[in-house]
Amino acid sequence: MNTQALLQTATEPQLVSERDMANAIRALAMDAVQKANSGHPGMPMGMADVATVLFNRFIKLDPLHPQWPDRDRFVLSAGHGSMLQYALHYLIGYPDMPAEELQRFRQLGARTAGHPEYGHAQGIETTTGPLGQGIATAVGMALAERLMRERFGAEIVDHFTYAIAGDGCLQEGISHEAIDLAGHLGLSRLIVLWDNNSISIDGPTSLSTSMDQLARFRAAGFDVWDIDGHDFEAIADAIGQARETDRPSLIACRTIIGKGAPNLQGTEKTHGAPLGDAEIAAARAAIGWPHAAFEVPEAIVETWRNVARRGADQRRDWCARLAASPDMGVFKSAVAKELPETLFEELDAFRREHLEKATKVATRKASEMVLGVINKATALTVGGSADLTHSNLTLTSGMGSISARDFSGRYVHYGIREHAMAAAMNGIALHGGFIPFGGTFLAFADYARGAIRLSALMGQQVIYVMTHDSIGLGEDGPTHQPVEHLAMLRATPGIDVYRPADIIETAECWELALKHRNRPSVLVLSRQNLPMLRLAHGKENRSSRGAYVLRETAGPRAATLIATGSEVEIACAAADILRAQHGIAAAVVSMPCWELFEKQMPAYRRSILAAAPRVAIEAAARQGWDRWIGENGDFIGMNGFGASAPAADLYRHFGITPEAVVERVRKLID
Amino acid sequence: MNTQALLQTATEPQLVSERDMANAIRALAMDAVQKANSGHPGMPMGMADVATVLFNRFIKLDPLHPQWPDRDRFVLSAGHGSMLQYALHYLIGYPDMPAEELQRFRQLGARTAGHPEYGHAQGIETTTGPLGQGIATAVGMALAERLMRERFGAEIVDHFTYAIAGDGCLQEGISHEAIDLAGHLGLSRLIVLWDNNSISIDGPTSLSTSMDQLARFRAAGFDVWDIDGHDFEAIADAIGQARETDRPSLIACRTIIGKGAPNLQGTEKTHGAPLGDAEIAAARAAIGWPHAAFEVPEAIVETWRNVARRGADQRRDWCARLAASPDMGVFKSAVAKELPETLFEELDAFRREHLEKATKVATRKASEMVLGVINKATALTVGGSADLTHSNLTLTSGMGSISARDFSGRYVHYGIREHAMAAAMNGIALHGGFIPFGGTFLAFADYARGAIRLSALMGQQVIYVMTHDSIGLGEDGPTHQPVEHLAMLRATPGIDVYRPADIIETAECWELALKHRNRPSVLVLSRQNLPMLRLAHGKENRSSRGAYVLRETAGPRAATLIATGSEVEIACAAADILRAQHGIAAAVVSMPCWELFEKQMPAYRRSILAAAPRVAIEAAARQGWDRWIGENGDFIGMNGFGASAPAADLYRHFGITPEAVVERVRKLID
Repeated sequence: MNTQALLQTATEPQLVSERDMANAIRALAMDAVQKANSGHPGMPMGMADVATVLFNRFIKLDPLHPQWPDRDRFVLSAGHGSMLQYALHYLIGYPDMPAEELQRFRQLGARTAGHPEYGHAQGIETTTGPLGQGIATAVGMALAERLMRERFGAEIVDHFTYAIAGDGCLQEGISHEAIDLAGHLGLSRLIVLWDNNSISIDGPTSLSTSMDQLARFRAAGFDVWDIDGHDFEAIADAIGQARETDRPSLIACRTIIGKGAPNLQGTEKTHGAPLGDAEIAAARAAIGWPHAAFEVPEAIVETWRNVARRGADQRRDWCARLAASPDMGVFKSAVAKELPETLFEELDAFRREHLEKATKVATRKASEMVLGVINKATALTVGGSADLTHSNLTLTSGMGSISARDFSGRYVHYGIREHAMAAAMNGIALHGGFIPFGGTFLAFADYARGAIRLSALMGQQVIYVMTHDSIGLGEDGPTHQPVEHLAMLRATPGIDVYRPADIIETAECWELALKHRNRPSVLVLSRQNLPMLRLAHGKENRSSRGAYVLRETAGPRAATLIATGSEVEIACAAADILRAQHGIAAAVVSMPCWELFEKQMPAYRRSILAAAPRVAIEAAARQGWDRWIGENGDFIGMNGFGASAPAADLYRHFGITPEAVVERVRKLID
Repeated sequence: MNTQALLQTATEPQLVSERDMANAIRALAMDAVQKANSGHPGMPMGMADVATVLFNRFIKLDPLHPQWPDRDRFVLSAGHGSMLQYALHYLIGYPDMPAEELQRFRQLGARTAGHPEYGHAQGIETTTGPLGQGIATAVGMALAERLMRERFGAEIVDHFTYAIAGDGCLQEGISHEAIDLAGHLGLSRLIVLWDNNSISIDGPTSLSTSMDQLARFRAAGFDVWDIDGHDFEAIADAIGQARETDRPSLIACRTIIGKGAPNLQGTEKTHGAPLGDAEIAAARAAIGWPHAAFEVPEAIVETWRNVARRGADQRRDWCARLAASPDMGVFKSAVAKELPETLFEELDAFRREHLEKATKVATRKASEMVLGVINKATALTVGGSADLTHSNLTLTSGMGSISARDFSGRYVHYGIREHAMAAAMNGIALHGGFIPFGGTFLAFADYARGAIRLSALMGQQVIYVMTHDSIGLGEDGPTHQPVEHLAMLRATPGIDVYRPADIIETAECWELALKHRNRPSVLVLSRQNLPMLRLAHGKENRSSRGAYVLRETAGPRAATLIATGSEVEIACAAADILRAQHGIAAAVVSMPCWELFEKQMPAYRRSILAAAPRVAIEAAARQGWDRWIGENGDFIGMNGFGASAPAADLYRHFGITPEAVVERVRKLID
């Protein structure tokens, strides 16, 4: 359907103007912020005209079926303007966004949180607020759309991703990574609407930037438009054209922040504080809005509801096309992210095979081997790496690289862009149809922190493959050697951090990451080879309880050694020495996942940790370990940053050796 | 001195060609990587010609006086090419870089670490390796140079900052933030040399980027050149011109990665692995280098030493100018970062005054008041914020905003660029002459993680002012409410994390941050008002021991409540209830800085924590607290992410109240 047709559908009969429609947004935004005595009226008022044209003439969605897979994705990257989104949802008629919700803006338990929170209200496609995340997440959504379209055809997958971004979004570094990736892949269905209001919190943007954003986006491979963001026809023309080009689009919308507030508009004073009763009254007069607070005339609401009617029609047509498609089953299975049961059977066979072979490989290599099984058994996985493919070992045979000319593959060369990779994976997961995984070095989780936190906050199944997980990476030195990163990830709510000790645990942890549908996982993997430590095969996934006794003592325990990943080998060696040379019975507990262990019943936890003195071994910071070792326990790990040297030298230098463990245990039980 | 003059100084008599000089770098790089069996030969070999011209004809430094304040700053942003820097240091004649150090490349204790590590060898201006950090740190150095030049004049401060950046540096988001800032401020003494070799680790850069870098840098306000990076005269012309323009410069140097290795050059195979004996032999033949491994002919070394001779002359002239300057004393004091003793006397008076007044303010407001005292007493501080000036309260009267037209001020509007702000502060601190501080919300420490870690690793006095430190920020919701950030920062080695409870502790923590010259500090501050809790004035800075008993019990303790920041008020209220209503004697320990408490003698620590059951209260994740509360203690804080609501509602909702503390204590001592 072309622009003109959409326009007619939406605006006939034209009793209510788009100006009226936009003013409804303005009024609701200033009223809600005033009532909450908190919030950001400037952006919704400034972008009301752009949003009105976008929704009134173009957007495809059905508020009664907010999960409809072929809906357009709308991302409010400038999330502080949340009242823009809530006002739209109310006006269009999302059932979960009655007027009362607008009146409860920013109150406990309201759907109308301070920033749009995924899962709080229908139609919020992603959580925004930390600037730049929205635009980068939108890149992932547009990529997922393109990949789905390649698989299922434009009859079934044919939607746009629209993102409204502010100056802050474009200043943040993540925006650079994201637009470079989008431009490179030619994601033509991505349309960024920049609220070009020249104001940020400190004052005019000229305080801090002189960037020529149009030139910058052009350099990244975008088509660009520079328009008056209060000219309805100019907005419509630009969006209409942007939909037709074969590159991603930036529409720079020159706007007046807080437009409508006669004394404050155009200044940072409208950005993040209520306008005040007097200015709101003045604004009502200025825009010709004589209605009471939160009141929108029926005719205006009715006109807005045309958006929903159009969407319902579009969805009905789409349902018919899907029903007629031979791919319907596969499509529905993809949207539901259904993994075949055979996958888990094959993983079980994989574990049995390598237990028998006692395969000794680095856990990053084990991960690659497991991925070989997974990627063969399901087409849901989309992998990638931030330019460390052959180090992270994230690419398995037959995946095929994705490029602007070929979307049949399943592997993304994300470039040296950890932050955009993580945000794009959020977007892929949120879009649906795929389970994304992506690799970098564990130390560079730092660069992706902002987006990893959102994976967790949104409960998205994003799988991080983080290799080179300790001083065990050796010569690259302290900048590349994680020390505090396990603590940082474990402290983050809602994310499972796995540090497997051998190939068997690696397969188990991958299985858990696939099965835990509503949370991100981080697989923390070694660069260096590690022996296979498991003694016998059981169907049970022993890692699933977070920690288990890998080596039990013959008699009563004199000590318990707790370790993760590459240090489990050291713990086993120490236990052997303790038994053979000192007659001390020390059990070894492998603890691949703290979060899962925390969820076990206290009795299970006690049975694993036991009463005897405990020593934990992990080539990382101590923080958090006191919880498991108790006041009388001890810890062997890193007390500061690493160093550049061969790995074996470093383990000796930092005293992370079986001998050191033996010494500490002997001191403890003396 | 103009380019031509420099050229003549350096190259007469021209017995040894720059080609020979560059080949010495190539040979040393491939030999050292081969011997270490680890490292990155491709970049040093590809950029050898550019580096030779830069050092031979332009750079100003004196290896015998590596701390000379007016030296040019050289930053190897593509830090994996560390052998380029080590080879240069050896050839120029840094006394601490004999040939033996090159042979110990990447070995334990060597100065020649895998990546350039600040403090390991003279002349390494900053630690690099995490990509993009170097270029952003260089922006801070160039800014510091410009500010110093404004203060002391070009007779004394007149140097350039050169950064060699790779494709990775330019793909990372931080580069966007950094070049936007540099272009905006017109830092004309910043010259970025881009190793434009079209290869990254995964393969050709065309796998992941289509960015027009020249257009992008132009959009940011840079002058740009596009040259053959193996044409000595083209390199010299570009650098010569770049030094003369009034904007920062990007010189895109088209190079062949691994140039000289006949069978591997131009491919990613030369990037990160030894070339192998056969290829090295072939390279020796190809470049006409018949010398043994690590051997450089005397004539070539001697020619390289001209760089040092030129630098020594330049330094001698500079010393004469400084000696003749009326500003010599002030300049030396600035370089030494000497704080006046009066500053600390005034801080003491400040504490006394507000103790008497019982001033009740948010700790962010207290910080602003303290900063008023500090910034008046010393000109060393350079402040700023990532576009949250009026929220972080980092600007005090009379500081003056820095802009491209005015460098007389002391306040940087860093823009919405937390990562570049942190890296630029590293650069300012490393450059010398200033103590930088900068603000953002604590939650957005995430965005700056990469650079914060380097502040710590390099031991630089950078002061982070991180406000809005918990759910206490209220309505902005979970994206803005830190939960795991205290744990993340505390887990990071080498950084002091302060969370003061009132205005007195805020002044104490600022004092400590100023006194601790060789480490970064993070001041974690509340948005909401907090009462003054200290009971009596003592000269002693009680925060300096990390934790102290704020409220002791009359008789023996039945319990100890430990808290930080805004939760100390809650602990005090709980102690009052426990005493008044339940006859339970609970002491209150305020613990503004874990790191300092850890450094105390065990006897002091025991006296503070005592034997009675302990409950810790902090509106953040539990991780790490078990160390202080022990196995029988309890913790009241956050078990997941926050929510959007007024602060008081959130404290109740998450059960962080005096009543909850009372209940837990009663349960514990039952």
